[in-house]
Amino acid sequence: MDAGCAQAQPALLDYKTEKYLLTKNRKVGVIYRFLHLAILCYIIGWVFLAKKGYQDTDSDPHFSIITKLKGVSITKNFRNSQEKIWDVADFVKPSQGENVLFLVTNFIATTGQVQRTCAENPVNSDARCSENLDCVAGEPVVNGNGIKTGKCVMFNHTQSTCEIYGWCPVENESLLRKPRLNEAENFTLFIKNVVHFSKFNFSRANTLDTSDETYFKNCRYNPVSSPYCPVFQIQEIITQAGQSFEELSVMGGVVAARIEWKCDLDRPAAECLPQYSFRLQDTKNNFRTATYYWDQERKEYRDLFKLYGFRFDISVTGEARKFGVVPTAVSLGTGCAFLGAATFLCDLILLYLDKKASFYRSCKYEEVKPPKNQQTIQETRNE
Amino acid sequence: MDAGCAQAQPALLDYKTEKYLLTKNRKVGVIYRFLHLAILCYIIGWVFLAKKGYQDTDSDPHFSIITKLKGVSITKNFRNSQEKIWDVADFVKPSQGENVLFLVTNFIATTGQVQRTCAENPVNSDARCSENLDCVAGEPVVNGNGIKTGKCVMFNHTQSTCEIYGWCPVENESLLRKPRLNEAENFTLFIKNVVHFSKFNFSRANTLDTSDETYFKNCRYNPVSSPYCPVFQIQEIITQAGQSFEELSVMGGVVAARIEWKCDLDRPAAECLPQYSFRLQDTKNNFRTATYYWDQERKEYRDLFKLYGFRFDISVTGEARKFGVVPTAVSLGTGCAFLGAATFLCDLILLYLDKKASFYRSCKYEEVKPPKNQQTIQETRNE
Amino acid sequence: MDAGCAQAQPALLDYKTEKYLLTKNRKVGVIYRFLHLAILCYIIGWVFLAKKGYQDTDSDPHFSIITKLKGVSITKNFRNSQEKIWDVADFVKPSQGENVLFLVTNFIATTGQVQRTCAENPVNSDARCSENLDCVAGEPVVNGNGIKTGKCVMFNHTQSTCEIYGWCPVENESLLRKPRLNEAENFTLFIKNVVHFSKFNFSRANTLDTSDETYFKNCRYNPVSSPYCPVFQIQEIITQAGQSFEELSVMGGVVAARIEWKCDLDRPAAECLPQYSFRLQDTKNNFRTATYYWDQERKEYRDLFKLYGFRFDISVTGEARKFGVVPTAVSLGTGCAFLGAATFLCDLILLYLDKKASFYRSCKYEEVKPPKNQQTIQETRNE
Repeated sequence: MDAGCAQAQPALLDYKTEKYLLTKNRKVGVIYRFLHLAILCYIIGWVFLAKKGYQDTDSDPHFSIITKLKGVSITKNFRNSQEKIWDVADFVKPSQGENVLFLVTNFIATTGQVQRTCAENPVNSDARCSENLDCVAGEPVVNGNGIKTGKCVMFNHTQSTCEIYGWCPVENESLLRKPRLNEAENFTLFIKNVVHFSKFNFSRANTLDTSDETYFKNCRYNPVSSPYCPVFQIQEIITQAGQSFEELSVMGGVVAARIEWKCDLDRPAAECLPQYSFRLQDTKNNFRTATYYWDQERKEYRDLFKLYGFRFDISVTGEARKFGVVPTAVSLGTGCAFLGAATFLCDLILLYLDKKASFYRSCKYEEVKPPKNQQTIQETRNE
Repeated sequence: MDAGCAQAQPALLDYKTEKYLLTKNRKVGVIYRFLHLAILCYIIGWVFLAKKGYQDTDSDPHFSIITKLKGVSITKNFRNSQEKIWDVADFVKPSQGENVLFLVTNFIATTGQVQRTCAENPVNSDARCSENLDCVAGEPVVNGNGIKTGKCVMFNHTQSTCEIYGWCPVENESLLRKPRLNEAENFTLFIKNVVHFSKFNFSRANTLDTSDETYFKNCRYNPVSSPYCPVFQIQEIITQAGQSFEELSVMGGVVAARIEWKCDLDRPAAECLPQYSFRLQDTKNNFRTATYYWDQERKEYRDLFKLYGFRFDISVTGEARKFGVVPTAVSLGTGCAFLGAATFLCDLILLYLDKKASFYRSCKYEEVKPPKNQQTIQETRNE
Repeated sequence: MDAGCAQAQPALLDYKTEKYLLTKNRKVGVIYRFLHLAILCYIIGWVFLAKKGYQDTDSDPHFSIITKLKGVSITKNFRNSQEKIWDVADFVKPSQGENVLFLVTNFIATTGQVQRTCAENPVNSDARCSENLDCVAGEPVVNGNGIKTGKCVMFNHTQSTCEIYGWCPVENESLLRKPRLNEAENFTLFIKNVVHFSKFNFSRANTLDTSDETYFKNCRYNPVSSPYCPVFQIQEIITQAGQSFEELSVMGGVVAARIEWKCDLDRPAAECLPQYSFRLQDTKNNFRTATYYWDQERKEYRDLFKLYGFRFDISVTGEARKFGVVPTAVSLGTGCAFLGAATFLCDLILLYLDKKASFYRSCKYEEVKPPKNQQTIQETRNE
């Protein structure tokens, strides 16, 4: 007879539960439980404890950064070898105190340039010449400083180059001494950062909320003793970036400063403190800039500066987390999927790999025949 | 006898369906259905309707911002108390019209500085002295304006400070009057923003596509009447940020402007309009900058400006959504996981919490014994 | 009798497997297998092969960009129609070589402005007047250049405008010739980019690691022959952005340059090369800037420049992927969820849509009655 083909028609509110075969098969049983355990550990240990899967997160905060460099340095043998004082208005570019700033540590000055003709610098291979024919008039020198006039002139006693029309005299690194802003290592960089997590409407600053004007003038950052004083000494920064100020300041470099906020809003806000990390992104960093002026005859002059120094790229990454129902549900849901997988796997083993597989198979599957037996079933029942 | 251990060997294309126990257990039945309902509501209501889980999203648009400030203001008692006109070229820094710009609303000018020796400003505690010994020659003043010469001189009738070599005279806030750019409140900020969602190759601008040159000169932003005119009055912006222009303009501040695009590409493009929000990120914002000039003897002078004002940080966040097969599948899949969870939960209740639990348990699990019984089964069948 | 209500109490390590009804129903069987196949293809083909679901990804790299423009151009009829040479220090703003830079291609110069009174430019509708009453003294001209003095004066033979106090003479586009930096099309833009994926602590640069100083001076970018030479000719860039340099250089524009890194760390690092793409974000781009100077009497002058040109917004998007256990698990998990869905669907068909549905239903569900039958079961067993 076919088992269990009663006339049982399930009603909506009857609870139906799968029928199970109970196999005294220890081997598979152990595997099965082990998988369960593993999955449970994964869900609880990893998803919930480690990854905090029960929390909603906002990882795209608004933020603002205000930076201030402090310090003053002196350079020798600048224009006709006089001393020059550099203060914040001189050595920070741009000066607005945004999240990217450049600190001059070294420079090459070519002062008093005017627009006239002179011999191009021989470092530009394109400008070297032996006769006028080598210099096509009106053609700019490749990577050069001006437009060729068509003449080939002596640059110095040894080399001759094309004459150009441009800002003359041309910059000539080899000749110029490099004065250094040595005191720059003692400059301090103040990084004020305010983050706002719109999802939780939660704001936080990395500075002490104090009325004491002088606090930030005297403090230095220390994760333990003064976590709310984001004032860093340039030398420290460079050291943390794994470099020596001495070397790096000659040719400059790019330093990435990252402020990382990890705020668990289920815990006291005081624990939500940023971490600062500094990485060297690039060695060598320089750019050219010029200041213009005019003499009495309104003739235009310029001082060309090739500035070497550190560029600080300050980036902020933030993540705020707070308990949420939906994320909890999702984490649970995905976790459950695995339980299904475990069963699936064990069935495979039991029904196809176990040596009594065929028996189990025959038991697991109970054949039912189309309604003609309906009758017989009736009878058996009515006996 | 063991039930259902027929020699039924399933073929690949036979469909197998779990066998269920039908328990007339209303309690669990209700719970079960309720859970189903809840999950269904969650999937349909939340995942699909609220979160639009059937849509593919691109939340990382390319974008460009062009800003233009318009207006002109007058300041009294600037250099030897004459009036000074400020126009866009004077009060916007940097002037390139990028997504970060600084609007000068107030300033302290220290004009005609030259590099020489003078008394340091006593606000720098490090510079205060009573005798020359307090001033170590060649040492820079901490947070100060120059290098100590080693002399202790009178700063004014009351205080004496170390003499420094630096840009003199030093800035002295207490003495200087602060002229204000009062008309700044009526300046207008034009924010042109173009976003491009590469995933859907969809571009959109926040400006009216008009040939009328004067349109943007006369319109003001209004979400209803003129949504395509992103021209904001500074005063409005500050007000929206919850501040008063009067107060904030004295010491400056940082205002974050966020442009939010939420574009549902399954709906007409016209509905995809940005929202503008302004938040005060920080009060107090200033920086120092200088302009340099030379007299006939090529002596270098500079005018030092400590500029106070508003920094506008304009950020763009965008999200475009469009129907996609994969996201739909994923949303469904995760949803289904819960159904499994529901069954799991109810079984627990039925088999371990229900008062007839042990009975249900015994029914749910049908013991099967290794093949030796195989035989008997045969017989029973063949009767 | 009730089937299978033996006194079988499951032990923890007994393996339990669902009991299945084996229906020889081909139709549903085929559907079922087909769904399985589909899901399998989806998981393997899409999730794993296409989307690389087994990999952990870091899509938020630190990066630094250093840009350098090279070239020199000449403009005719500048101030009193003399020639003017423009080199990098002149035509790049800001000059720091960051990820946003502006290349001047055209400009309007209004030289020798001083602060005095003059007639406002009639393009400002607000400034047009017929009598003094039209000009309210002390009121700034809307979008204008100064403060009205209250007089209505002749601007030229045809028009009369309000007199203003401001930087005079006012800028007057109609009059000024526009000299163009034609050679700009041959300028080269060098984009050095270093990315660092902190999750995998993996760094990479887009430049050849060479000691040869001249390499980057002579090479041009080519994805095949010179992928490590990120030097682009301006003209190329504009062309790639789908524009003609000729047209665009007149009014300027905004070009977005995107550097895309896709690094599969399971494969050799050499294969991780960036892709460069250029898009025109906006046509028309200009801003005003001024240089200031003083005559012997310390009278302030300025040269006002309305600069037209290209703004290059360089953005970096990066994604590094590497095999990870967790993502693999998650991908599998979500995939499994679908298998459940397939069963669910097929059961629906079998039990409610199939013509023998009611029969299958009656077989699938085996009714069990509360313990009073417990007894009878005993008996049947003991027979």
